[in-house]
Amino acid sequence: MTLDGLLPELEVIRKDFPILERQLADGKPLVYLDSANTSQKPQVVIDTMVDHLERHNANIARAMHQLGAESTEAYEAARDQVAAFLHAPSRNEVVFTKNATEALNLLARTIELQPGDNVVITEMEHHSNIVSWQLACERSGAELRWFGLTEDGHLDLSNADQLVDEHTKVVAFTWVSNMLGTVNPVARLSELARAVGAYSVVDASQAAPQLPIDVTEVGCDFLVFTGHKTVGPTGIGVLWGREELLNALPPFHGGGEMIETVTMERSTYAAAPHRFEAGTPPIVEAVGLGAALDYLSQVGLDAVHRHEQTITAYALEGLATVKGLRVLGPLDATQRGGAISFELAGVHPHDIATVLDTRGIAVRAGHHCAKPAHARYGVQSTTRMSSYLYTTPEEIDALVEGLEQTRAYFGLD
Amino acid sequence: MTLDGLLPELEVIRKDFPILERQLADGKPLVYLDSANTSQKPQVVIDTMVDHLERHNANIARAMHQLGAESTEAYEAARDQVAAFLHAPSRNEVVFTKNATEALNLLARTIELQPGDNVVITEMEHHSNIVSWQLACERSGAELRWFGLTEDGHLDLSNADQLVDEHTKVVAFTWVSNMLGTVNPVARLSELARAVGAYSVVDASQAAPQLPIDVTEVGCDFLVFTGHKTVGPTGIGVLWGREELLNALPPFHGGGEMIETVTMERSTYAAAPHRFEAGTPPIVEAVGLGAALDYLSQVGLDAVHRHEQTITAYALEGLATVKGLRVLGPLDATQRGGAISFELAGVHPHDIATVLDTRGIAVRAGHHCAKPAHARYGVQSTTRMSSYLYTTPEEIDALVEGLEQTRAYFGLD
Repeated sequence: MTLDGLLPELEVIRKDFPILERQLADGKPLVYLDSANTSQKPQVVIDTMVDHLERHNANIARAMHQLGAESTEAYEAARDQVAAFLHAPSRNEVVFTKNATEALNLLARTIELQPGDNVVITEMEHHSNIVSWQLACERSGAELRWFGLTEDGHLDLSNADQLVDEHTKVVAFTWVSNMLGTVNPVARLSELARAVGAYSVVDASQAAPQLPIDVTEVGCDFLVFTGHKTVGPTGIGVLWGREELLNALPPFHGGGEMIETVTMERSTYAAAPHRFEAGTPPIVEAVGLGAALDYLSQVGLDAVHRHEQTITAYALEGLATVKGLRVLGPLDATQRGGAISFELAGVHPHDIATVLDTRGIAVRAGHHCAKPAHARYGVQSTTRMSSYLYTTPEEIDALVEGLEQTRAYFGLD
Repeated sequence: MTLDGLLPELEVIRKDFPILERQLADGKPLVYLDSANTSQKPQVVIDTMVDHLERHNANIARAMHQLGAESTEAYEAARDQVAAFLHAPSRNEVVFTKNATEALNLLARTIELQPGDNVVITEMEHHSNIVSWQLACERSGAELRWFGLTEDGHLDLSNADQLVDEHTKVVAFTWVSNMLGTVNPVARLSELARAVGAYSVVDASQAAPQLPIDVTEVGCDFLVFTGHKTVGPTGIGVLWGREELLNALPPFHGGGEMIETVTMERSTYAAAPHRFEAGTPPIVEAVGLGAALDYLSQVGLDAVHRHEQTITAYALEGLATVKGLRVLGPLDATQRGGAISFELAGVHPHDIATVLDTRGIAVRAGHHCAKPAHARYGVQSTTRMSSYLYTTPEEIDALVEGLEQTRAYFGLD
């Protein structure tokens, strides 16, 4: 197969990520294939955070002094960077949260549901986009429904007209599955929601790192992603929402900076985004996220996407040579993202991960916070490799070789 | 007055904080008197975060590889450090949140309230400990009550027996007021709650930076504080709660790592602390907080407290020499923390802050997220200076001199 789609400056990019130089316990180089779990951070993100902490640290909005102004400017510049990254019509549509999970729960807590309403999700969601709505339905008496999955790892949309009806309030779905890798038709799903007057909620946690995003093109109402998977720090996530919708939602957390006025008897609330950013926000984390999105934009999301597709195709080809290995989800790289979950006949996923770890290869084993998707395919857990813009074909070769060694170790022919 | 209580190694400590070397716009040295808003960070906190990002970054709990183990160990070690800092009986009682506001809202969302119940707060609370309970009472139909304030800035406990009754479910109060500086009798307030079977909730956001804390000695049920005021990073806060109480609360956010099992129909939940830590937590922020609490513990919280009391007494003495200046809150340094809010007759607080800023002096002006406490004393806003372990008497002298200049600038005699 051709490797033309690899990032041309791959070795330069790798040098941007200090952890990739890491020697593991017995001197083995790190082969990091766990980026869907969390991505590594380029030096520029770390340096930007350090510069903020060492030179500009102050609380934001509240402080009328030079450091306060500098810190506020840096924080609000990060909001502009996120808005640009998402091609959002307005910076006021960007709410900083602590992670994607908080963003989804914010929606599940503030969108009003009643008995008789229903919420439609999918069977391939991450737990954050399942349990949040289960809890919302339990609180409200609304009904939870979901799209099932086809044998080859796609959404089964055959009963879409029955599932999404005039009582549907929310249709919430992932853009790219963290377990199956499947890329979902988000524009079509958003249109399904819009047709019945329901909110569409896109979980872009796995999409934001590897696809160009234009929220207007998708046509969704809300979209969430998290910083730590997009080469940014932990502790920061994003809720994007159409401005008029955000301003129609009630407050989430009560506290400083989300208010207009407070008396002991009652309070009134600021408009979005501040309404949803109670308390001191993750300031240095937002600043780090801004640097991360700048970094990705400089590499180019189209180029990152091409790289991921190339590496994924190469990995699918390599994994197909391993006897007894079954990939879950689409087998065509153009239909999927850079996370590949698989089974290896005769070896428990945890054992695979453990053997690979002895060779310096970091993968994830378990249910990947997607138990229902595993159950759908009759498995408890899988091993997952996930690539990113710094992943090389040689690392995929090392994985395939490691899997052959794993088979040998467990005495499989 | 005597300055014997100052930290003996004050100049060494100042060198630990790189931002204190900062020259502002026109070459003036920074005089940072806004630590109650956010504290500055010692090099060791920044370095610990950098080391984590550059060498150990991985997601926690989920990852079965060397980096994952290292990251998990660092995150869980931070939990141990918090438990030790609070003298908590168990590490399972320490829940990481994004800030103190989230910790308070977590309680306000998960403690069950009904019509007929009441929640008792105080008129000196930060908005985070007011609005969170206002919203909870609106949702549930419970009644919100509060302790008033005496003329000299203390809680008026004269009607405690009427306020806290057999229908009280929560008594929530700050340990140290962020506006008045008042140190409240937290053990007595916790006892009031316990006597009627209500939960006691202590907001230690201003106490944790400057007082030794022993949750068992306080006798409270829940206590919250935030990382960024305790020389740690933003994006990390702490909810401490008695283990059996935390485990009796329903889940807060739904998502990864807070579950026991998930099917599309229903889920069951992990025990505390994981039940309340849905999604990827603020990992590098927890690690930074651990380093911050270690730093404070090495200086010694008793020594920090003595330093704060000494600086506060020195500041109260200096401020008393400024004509037309009125301090709100207790005038005895032993009854208060290191935040001093004041009015200066004839000058708007914002103008004071602006003039001081031209001299490199950073203070806060406004309502300090405590509008009701301001309203109680008939003011809209105040100027607030707040010191910390790196504050010198010379910085207080600069403030007093700056205030004299402010008076002169505005043509006051």
